[in-house]
Amino acid sequence: MDDITYRVEHDFLGEKQIPNTAYYGIQTLRALENFTITGITNATEPYFIQAFAYVKKAAALANRDLGVLDTQLAEAIVFACDRLIAGEYQDQFLTDLIQGGAGTSVNMNVNEVIANIGLEYLGYHKGEYQHLHPNNHVNCSQSTNDAYPTALMMALNRKVEAYLDALAALRQSFSRKADAFSDVLKMGRTQLQDAVPMTLGQEFHAFATTIGDDIRHMREAQHKLLECNMGATAIGTRINAPEGYPELCVKYLAEVSGLPMHLAPDLIEATSDMGTYVQVSGSLKRSAIKLSKICNDLRLLSSGPRTGLNEIRLPPLQPGSSIMPGKVNPVIPEVVNQTAFYVVGADMTITMAAEAGQLQLNVMEPVIAFSLFTALNYMTNAVNTLWTKCVDGITANVDVCRNMVMNSIGIVTALNPILGYETSAAIAKEALATGKSVHQLVVVERQLITQAKWDEIYSFENMVHPAYIAS
Amino acid sequence: MDDITYRVEHDFLGEKQIPNTAYYGIQTLRALENFTITGITNATEPYFIQAFAYVKKAAALANRDLGVLDTQLAEAIVFACDRLIAGEYQDQFLTDLIQGGAGTSVNMNVNEVIANIGLEYLGYHKGEYQHLHPNNHVNCSQSTNDAYPTALMMALNRKVEAYLDALAALRQSFSRKADAFSDVLKMGRTQLQDAVPMTLGQEFHAFATTIGDDIRHMREAQHKLLECNMGATAIGTRINAPEGYPELCVKYLAEVSGLPMHLAPDLIEATSDMGTYVQVSGSLKRSAIKLSKICNDLRLLSSGPRTGLNEIRLPPLQPGSSIMPGKVNPVIPEVVNQTAFYVVGADMTITMAAEAGQLQLNVMEPVIAFSLFTALNYMTNAVNTLWTKCVDGITANVDVCRNMVMNSIGIVTALNPILGYETSAAIAKEALATGKSVHQLVVVERQLITQAKWDEIYSFENMVHPAYIAS
Amino acid sequence: MDDITYRVEHDFLGEKQIPNTAYYGIQTLRALENFTITGITNATEPYFIQAFAYVKKAAALANRDLGVLDTQLAEAIVFACDRLIAGEYQDQFLTDLIQGGAGTSVNMNVNEVIANIGLEYLGYHKGEYQHLHPNNHVNCSQSTNDAYPTALMMALNRKVEAYLDALAALRQSFSRKADAFSDVLKMGRTQLQDAVPMTLGQEFHAFATTIGDDIRHMREAQHKLLECNMGATAIGTRINAPEGYPELCVKYLAEVSGLPMHLAPDLIEATSDMGTYVQVSGSLKRSAIKLSKICNDLRLLSSGPRTGLNEIRLPPLQPGSSIMPGKVNPVIPEVVNQTAFYVVGADMTITMAAEAGQLQLNVMEPVIAFSLFTALNYMTNAVNTLWTKCVDGITANVDVCRNMVMNSIGIVTALNPILGYETSAAIAKEALATGKSVHQLVVVERQLITQAKWDEIYSFENMVHPAYIAS
Amino acid sequence: MDDITYRVEHDFLGEKQIPNTAYYGIQTLRALENFTITGITNATEPYFIQAFAYVKKAAALANRDLGVLDTQLAEAIVFACDRLIAGEYQDQFLTDLIQGGAGTSVNMNVNEVIANIGLEYLGYHKGEYQHLHPNNHVNCSQSTNDAYPTALMMALNRKVEAYLDALAALRQSFSRKADAFSDVLKMGRTQLQDAVPMTLGQEFHAFATTIGDDIRHMREAQHKLLECNMGATAIGTRINAPEGYPELCVKYLAEVSGLPMHLAPDLIEATSDMGTYVQVSGSLKRSAIKLSKICNDLRLLSSGPRTGLNEIRLPPLQPGSSIMPGKVNPVIPEVVNQTAFYVVGADMTITMAAEAGQLQLNVMEPVIAFSLFTALNYMTNAVNTLWTKCVDGITANVDVCRNMVMNSIGIVTALNPILGYETSAAIAKEALATGKSVHQLVVVERQLITQAKWDEIYSFENMVHPAYIAS
Repeated sequence: MDDITYRVEHDFLGEKQIPNTAYYGIQTLRALENFTITGITNATEPYFIQAFAYVKKAAALANRDLGVLDTQLAEAIVFACDRLIAGEYQDQFLTDLIQGGAGTSVNMNVNEVIANIGLEYLGYHKGEYQHLHPNNHVNCSQSTNDAYPTALMMALNRKVEAYLDALAALRQSFSRKADAFSDVLKMGRTQLQDAVPMTLGQEFHAFATTIGDDIRHMREAQHKLLECNMGATAIGTRINAPEGYPELCVKYLAEVSGLPMHLAPDLIEATSDMGTYVQVSGSLKRSAIKLSKICNDLRLLSSGPRTGLNEIRLPPLQPGSSIMPGKVNPVIPEVVNQTAFYVVGADMTITMAAEAGQLQLNVMEPVIAFSLFTALNYMTNAVNTLWTKCVDGITANVDVCRNMVMNSIGIVTALNPILGYETSAAIAKEALATGKSVHQLVVVERQLITQAKWDEIYSFENMVHPAYIAS
Repeated sequence: MDDITYRVEHDFLGEKQIPNTAYYGIQTLRALENFTITGITNATEPYFIQAFAYVKKAAALANRDLGVLDTQLAEAIVFACDRLIAGEYQDQFLTDLIQGGAGTSVNMNVNEVIANIGLEYLGYHKGEYQHLHPNNHVNCSQSTNDAYPTALMMALNRKVEAYLDALAALRQSFSRKADAFSDVLKMGRTQLQDAVPMTLGQEFHAFATTIGDDIRHMREAQHKLLECNMGATAIGTRINAPEGYPELCVKYLAEVSGLPMHLAPDLIEATSDMGTYVQVSGSLKRSAIKLSKICNDLRLLSSGPRTGLNEIRLPPLQPGSSIMPGKVNPVIPEVVNQTAFYVVGADMTITMAAEAGQLQLNVMEPVIAFSLFTALNYMTNAVNTLWTKCVDGITANVDVCRNMVMNSIGIVTALNPILGYETSAAIAKEALATGKSVHQLVVVERQLITQAKWDEIYSFENMVHPAYIAS
Repeated sequence: MDDITYRVEHDFLGEKQIPNTAYYGIQTLRALENFTITGITNATEPYFIQAFAYVKKAAALANRDLGVLDTQLAEAIVFACDRLIAGEYQDQFLTDLIQGGAGTSVNMNVNEVIANIGLEYLGYHKGEYQHLHPNNHVNCSQSTNDAYPTALMMALNRKVEAYLDALAALRQSFSRKADAFSDVLKMGRTQLQDAVPMTLGQEFHAFATTIGDDIRHMREAQHKLLECNMGATAIGTRINAPEGYPELCVKYLAEVSGLPMHLAPDLIEATSDMGTYVQVSGSLKRSAIKLSKICNDLRLLSSGPRTGLNEIRLPPLQPGSSIMPGKVNPVIPEVVNQTAFYVVGADMTITMAAEAGQLQLNVMEPVIAFSLFTALNYMTNAVNTLWTKCVDGITANVDVCRNMVMNSIGIVTALNPILGYETSAAIAKEALATGKSVHQLVVVERQLITQAKWDEIYSFENMVHPAYIAS
Repeated sequence: MDDITYRVEHDFLGEKQIPNTAYYGIQTLRALENFTITGITNATEPYFIQAFAYVKKAAALANRDLGVLDTQLAEAIVFACDRLIAGEYQDQFLTDLIQGGAGTSVNMNVNEVIANIGLEYLGYHKGEYQHLHPNNHVNCSQSTNDAYPTALMMALNRKVEAYLDALAALRQSFSRKADAFSDVLKMGRTQLQDAVPMTLGQEFHAFATTIGDDIRHMREAQHKLLECNMGATAIGTRINAPEGYPELCVKYLAEVSGLPMHLAPDLIEATSDMGTYVQVSGSLKRSAIKLSKICNDLRLLSSGPRTGLNEIRLPPLQPGSSIMPGKVNPVIPEVVNQTAFYVVGADMTITMAAEAGQLQLNVMEPVIAFSLFTALNYMTNAVNTLWTKCVDGITANVDVCRNMVMNSIGIVTALNPILGYETSAAIAKEALATGKSVHQLVVVERQLITQAKWDEIYSFENMVHPAYIAS
C-alpha cells in the first residue's frame, strides 16, 4: 500500500491524483467517482472496447492521411489500439455501463488509455499528454457523439451475430426433432380444446420455421448496424473535422474491423437518432416472445407425468423439488421464459430512452447500450441452453399421443364434408355427453359411414396430410 | 340545412360562427377542429361531465360567499351545473378525450355550456357573455390546472367504485364455487408437473382470497382520489383566487358531490403530480394480471374435453369453431385475458405520460384520463362478464379429478416423513419408468407400509388437511 | 315495437329468436350477448369487413372451381361479398372488436350475413340455411383460424398504407420548412447545454430524414402482411380443404383484392404465429417514439415566448388557458406525444397477447387486431394533424436564433484546432465566470487570433458547413 | 490443480463429483451446469442468503420443538445458519439469480451448505448426509415454495429500507434547497410556456413534498412484505408439516430476524400469488418516474448556460465533452433518468412474470427476484448519487430568474380580476407582437392601472403568495 505512487493530472475543473499504474486518466477517475449505479463495467463488454479501438485506429489513420495528425503520433495511437483489439488492458475500463454524459466518460476512458499506452510506446511517461493528448490527438476529429454510437453499433453487430448463431443451432435442433417425430400422430389443440390431428413432427417443424423467420428478421436489423455517423463530430455538422474525413475514416473503419461500415446520409439526423437500436431491440423482443411461446408449449406438452398432457418428455436435469420426491421440472424452458420477460422489459427501457432524446443528441444512449448488451447476452445464453440442455434430448411418448387422438371427439371434423357441420356437431355433442367414441356413434350405432370409409379417413396418412374426402 | 342560424363568438385569436343551437362556444369549436384523434368524446364519460359540474358549482358557491361573484350569476351557474349533474346536455361535450392543452378544451367546453345555460336562465341569449362569461364568471378563481384534475379524480373515484363492485361480485362467485367444490379431491400442480393433492374448493377459495386482497389494495388507491388541488389555480400559487377560497371551495365540493374531498397540502406539488393516477393504474394492473392468471388456470383446468385436464367444465356459450363441430371454447376467460393485456398497455401509456410532465404541469393528463377511463370500463365489463357468464356456471368433473390423484406419482410426497426423501424418490422413479402405481410399489410389492397405514394417509381428510404422519 | 317479427335459428347449443330484419344469425347474436367489453364494434373497421368479403369471395371461387361448391351457391356468395365490398350492410357487424373465441364470432357474423344476403339473392328467406349454409357453404374449406388472420392482414395492409401516406406528407412538410429555414443560423444543443452552431434548416431536414427512414422501415413490415395462411383451415393441416385449394384460393384473393397476397410456406407455423403483427406494431412504435421526440423538440424550441428558447413559433390554434390571458400552447405536438404514448401501450398489449399463444393457435388475436386498428387510426390522425395544423405553419424567430449563437460560449469549439482543447476550455471557463463573450476574450483581450481569422471562422458559411481551419 | 480432491454425491438422477472444499452439494452443481444466463449470482445479494438462513433457523427450531427434528441436529443447523447470518460462506452461493425450477436450486444450495457446515460441526465429513440431510433435516417441514418466497420477502424488506433511507435523504436535500431559495422569484411555466410567477423555493419544496409522498406509498408496500407463507410447504396444504408448525415457525422467524413476520391467512393463495412483488415494483416504478420528471426539470432549469433557461446551476462534476471545451453537462440527473427507465423495464418484466403463474405456483419468481433486486440496487444508488453529487450543490442564478419574470407577458394574469380576461388577453397579444413589456402597455401607454397599484400587485410578496386584488 505504501508503495503506490501517483501522478497528478488536470482538466478544466481541477487536479486529481492518479495511481501511476493506471492507464486511464483524470476523466475516467471522475467518472468512477460519479457513476456507481449497476456495478457492471464497460470491461464486461470486450467487443465494445475492441470496437472503440477500431474507431480510434480508423480516425488516427484518416487524420494522418489528411495531415491533421503527426505520423508518429498516429503510429503510437495505432499501436495502442492494436493492443486493445488484442484484448489487453481490459481492466482499465471500469466505468459503469450506465453513465451520464452520453458516453463521454467511456470515450474519454478509451482516449486516456490509448494516450498512455501510446506515450509509453513513444518513450514518455504516462500523463505526459503534451506529447500525445487524449483530446487533441486520440480524439482528433471526433466527438463522443460519433465515436460512442459507432463503437456501440459495431459491438452490437458482433453480439447479434452470436445470437443469430444460437438461433440457427436451435432451429436445427428443432428440425432434427421434427424429422424424428414425423410419424408421431397426435392431437392438435386450439384454445386448449381438442382440435384435429397432426404429427408431433409438424409441431416441431413449425418451431423451426418460426425461428428461421426470426433469423431473417434479425438479420435485417443487424444490417442497419453497419450505418454509422463517424465524422459527425459534435452534432453532425462535421465541425473540427477536416474535409473528406468522414468518408475516409469510415473507409478505414471497414478495413480495420472487417465490417462493411458505411456513412449515414444525414449526419445530423444520425447523431440523435435511436431508430436502429429500437429496431434491434424490437427484433430481439419479437424472437424472445416467440421463444417464450414455444417454451410454454414445451412445458404444456410435457406436463404430467400422470395428470398432464405427457406427450413429450424433456431430459431430466435436476431433482425438481426439495419436498416432492421424484419430481422433475421443465427447468430449461422455465429459464428461457424468464429471460424473455427480461428482454421485454429491456425493450421498454430502450423505448423510453429513445423517446427521451432532446434536440441534437440522445443523452440516454448508455442505458440503451446497457439494455441491449445484457438482453443479447442473456438471450444468447438462454437459447444455447435451450437447445443443448433441452430440445436435443426431447423424446416422444408415442402411445400417449396416438391414444389421445383416437379417443378424441375432435376427429369428427374430418366428417364435415360427408355429414355436414350440423350432423357432425350433434355427434360431437352426444360423444361428450355419453363418453362414447366418435367411431362408436358414427360407424357402429348410427352407421352413417362404413368401417372401410372410416379406415380411409382415419388412416395415418390422411390424418397428417388430409385429402378432401366427401361422401 | 337552410334553417341553421349562427351566432358569432370571438376570442383573442379571432372570430368563429357557432350554430345557434349549440351551448358550447368558440373555444370548444376550435378544439373540435384541432383534435381528431380517437373519436371517443368526453360525452362518453358522463361521470366526468358530472364531476366537472360539481367543481363549477362548488367554485361558484365559494366565489359568491367570498364576494367575488355576483349572487345572481352564482345562482345561474348553479342552475346550469344542476342540469349537467342531472345528465342533461351530454351531447354538448364532443371534444376528443385525447387533446392537447392539458384539458383546457374540455374545461372551456364546460365553462361555455354552463355560461350559455346560465344566460338563458337569466333571460339572455346564448353568446351574450358580457352578462355571464365562461372565463370571468364560470371559471372564476379557477384554472384548467385545478378544475380538470379535480373533476378527473372525482370521476375516477366513481368508476373505481363500479370496478370494486364487480370484483366483489366475482369474489363471491368464486366463494360459492369454493363451497360447492369443497369435497372435490384433485391433484395440485406446480410447474405444470403433478405435485400433491388438494381440493378444487381450496383452489377456488384461493381465487376468492386473492381477489379480496385486490379489493383492499384498490380501495387504498381509491382513497387517494379524494385529495384535490382546487384553488391552486394556474400553478399552485393560488393566483387570482380570493383568500380562503381553496378551503371553502373544497368544503362545498364535498357537500355537493357527497364525496369527502379534501385539499392537498402542497398545491404546487399537487398541480403537476401524477402519482395518484399512477397508483390507481398500478392497482388496476395488479388486479388485471392476477385475473389473467386465474383465467389461464380456468382455461387449463377445463382443457380437453378428451385430450386435456378436463377437471372442470365452463358453461358452453357459443359454438367454438366455424369448422370443428361440437367444439366449445373458454371464450369468457379468453376475453378477460385480452382485456387484462389492454390494461397492462394502458398502464405503460400512463407511465410514459406521467414521466413526461415538465415543470409546473403535466400536459399529458388527457391521455392519462383516456387510459384510465377505458381501462376501468373494459375491466369492469370483463369482470362482470366473467362471473355472470362463466364462474357462476362452472361444474366439476369429480371423477376425473379423483382418478388423477390416485393415479399420480406425486402422492408419494406424503410418505417422506416415513420413508425419507431418497426412498420416496426411488419409488417415484420406478413408478414413472414402469407405469405402476405408488400403491402397487409401496404396499403390494415392497411392503414398506401396511394397507391400513396407506388408508390412513390417503384418506380424503388427510389429503386435504394433511396431518403429520410419521412411521 | 309490436311489429318486430322474428325468425328462429338454432345451433348445437339451442335456439334463439333473431329479428327478421337482421342479416346476422344465431352465432352473431350469441356473441353480442357474450362480449360487451369495449363497445367498439367490427363495423368501425370497414376495411376489415371488406377484407373478410374478399376472403369469402376468393374461397367461394376456389371451392367452385374445385367442385366442392355448387356454381349457383358460389354465385350467390360472390354477389353477397360484392355488396360488402361496396360498403353495404356495415350495420350488421356489431360484435365487439375484443372477443373470445379467436375471432370465431366475427367470422361467423360474416358467414351469416353473406348467407342471408345470398339466400335472398337466390329467392329464399333469411335463415333458410338448408339452401345456403353459413358453415357448410360460406365457410367451406375454411376455418376462423385462416379466414380471420388473412382478413386482418389485408385490412392492416390498407391501414398501414394510410399511415404511410400521412408520414410522407409530414416528411414533405418538414422538408419544405428545412428549405425555408436553410439560412437561419442557430445554436445546436446537446444534453440541453449549448453545443455548436447549425441551421434551423438542418434541424428540420433531420426531422424529414428520420421520418423517411421510418417510412422505409414500415414498408418492410407492410410487405410481410401479404403472406397469409388461407387453406390452413383449423390448424394448418389443410383438413377439409380440397387438393390445390390453398394455392387457388390465394390466387383468387390477390385477384379480387388487388393485393399481391401469397401463401405462407409452413401453414402450421403461420396459423399460430403472431410475428408479423409484432413487427408491424414494432415499426409503428418506432415511428411513434421518434415523432414524440420531434414533438418534444418542437415544444422546446417554441418555449417561451419570453422565458424559453423561443427559436420558432408554432401557429396559434386556440387560447391556451382558462386563466392566463394571451397564453398559447403547443397543443398539436402535445396531442401527438400523447398518441405516441398510446401506441407504446398498444405495443405492450400486443407483446403480451403474442406471447400468450398456446399450441396450434393464438387465441388472443382479437386484442391484437383491436390494438393495431386503434393505434394505426390514432397515429394516422395525429400525424395528419401535426403537419396540417402545426408544421406547415411554423415560422422562425431568426434574430433570436442568431443572437443566441453569437452570445454563446459553445462557439469556442471551432477554435480547438488552433488553440487546442485546453486553452479553449480555459476561455470557456472564463467566459462563463465573467459573462464576457468569446470574441471579447479571444480577439480583444488575449489577442489569440486576429479579427480577420475570427471573421473567417465565424462566417455563416463556415458555421453551417464547417471547414477545417487550423492556425 | 493436481491436489483437488473430490467426494461423490448422488441424487435420484445419478452421481456427481464435488470438490471436497465445496460446502454446496450435487444439486447446486447441477444448477451451476444448467443455468448460465446472467452471470449475476445469488451471492451478490447477501440479504437474500441471510434471509434464507433465518428461514432455515426458524424452521429448525420449530421442528425441534414439535419433535420432528432431533435436538442435536437442530443445534447443528442453527449453528450453520448463524454462520451464514454472520456473512460467512457467501462464495458458496454461485447459482444464477435467474434460474428455472422456481428457486429450488438456490433453496437446495442453502440446504446443502447448511448441511455440510452442520456435519462438520457434528464431527462428520462433508457429504455424509446420512447424519444430517439437506432434504430430510435442513429442509424439514419446508418446500422451496414456502422457503424461497419467504426469504425473498425478507430480503426485499431490507432492500426497500435502504431505498427509503436514500429517498429520505434526498427529500431533506430538496427541503434545504427550498429554504435556501425561498426568496428567489422566478417564472412558473406550464406546457413550457410562460405562466405566472413563483419562487424557486416553492419549486424545490414541491420536489420534497412529492418524494415524501412516495416514501409513504413505498412504506405501505414494504409492510406487505411481512406476510409470508411459511408452513405452506408444497402448495399450501401444509403437507408434511407437523400440526402447529406454520404458526410456530413464523413466530421463530420474527424472533430470529427482528422483522415482525406474520402468516398469510390463505396459504394456498399465498403460495402462488405475486401481488406483493407487483405492488413493491409498482411503488418503485412510481417513485422512479417521479424522480425522472424531477431530473428532467433539473436539466431544463439548468440548461444553457447562454442559450437555455439557466435558472439554476448544477455542481460541475466532469468535463462534458471530448470536443467542446468548457462544456459541463447535467450528468447526474441524466444517470438518474436512465436508471428510472431501467426500473420501468423491470416492472414490465415483473408484470409478465406475475401473469405467467400457473395453477399452484408461479415458477417465474426468480426473474421477479432478479428484477426487484437489481431495480432496488440501481435506484438506491441513483438516489444517493443524486442528492450527494447534485442536489446538495445546486445554486440559483437569482438575477436570471428575476429578470425573466419582469420581462414576461405571463404576469398579466394577475390583472384578470381588475381588467377581465379579455382585456388582459389583448394586452398580452400586443406585448407579444410588439416586444413591449406588460408594464409599458398597462401603466405607461394605456394607463389602465396606476404605478402604485402595479407596485402593489407586483411586489415580491404578492407574486409569491398572491392576495386577491381587484380594482
